[in-house]
Amino acid sequence: MDAFDIGGIDDVIHGRIRLGIMAYLSSAEVADFNELKALLQATQGNLSVHLRKLEDAAYVEIEKSFLGRKPLTRIRITAAGRKAFSTYLAAMGRLVEQASKGETG
Amino acid sequence: MDAFDIGGIDDVIHGRIRLGIMAYLSSAEVADFNELKALLQATQGNLSVHLRKLEDAAYVEIEKSFLGRKPLTRIRITAAGRKAFSTYLAAMGRLVEQASKGETG
Repeated sequence: MDAFDIGGIDDVIHGRIRLGIMAYLSSAEVADFNELKALLQATQGNLSVHLRKLEDAAYVEIEKSFLGRKPLTRIRITAAGRKAFSTYLAAMGRLVEQASKGETG
Repeated sequence: MDAFDIGGIDDVIHGRIRLGIMAYLSSAEVADFNELKALLQATQGNLSVHLRKLEDAAYVEIEKSFLGRKPLTRIRITAAGRKAFSTYLAAMGRLVEQASKGETG
């Protein structure tokens, strides 16, 4: 029953918006708020909530600064975030693989 | 940005419990309520809610009968459910693949 071990799926990452954030940061390393907002077609409030959840889990770090007078918010994946995302991908990869086998079997 | 097209992830399936149900049914075809309940370590109420959501989307059919005096609830994946799960797996597969590339790149 390993294939269906949904307990192995990290809920902090699994949420669709958070999954998009982590997938993007896993390759980009760092992104600014507006970039993520456009990419994920999220509202400002919604994106903020999900970023806070990732920050609470220490999967991302949020740096706030100013560019001239414009506030600049940059989000960076942490080492813990990379590790958690890697574990998540492995769990989903197993599920995809096992379920694909089931489909043909 | 195809890799991060989270719009392609079917929310009806993506929920962790529902994902477990669909993954199991995709290979087992049919399961009874108590079997799923034990497998997913869900409460009766929680499992019922998620099954109803899958039934509303026509991804599963729920058959209620009696075995002697004991109520028996069987859940069967539909053709539409198979198709939706297959689409979901493809979307997740792409994400896993692209994100894995990003990790090593």
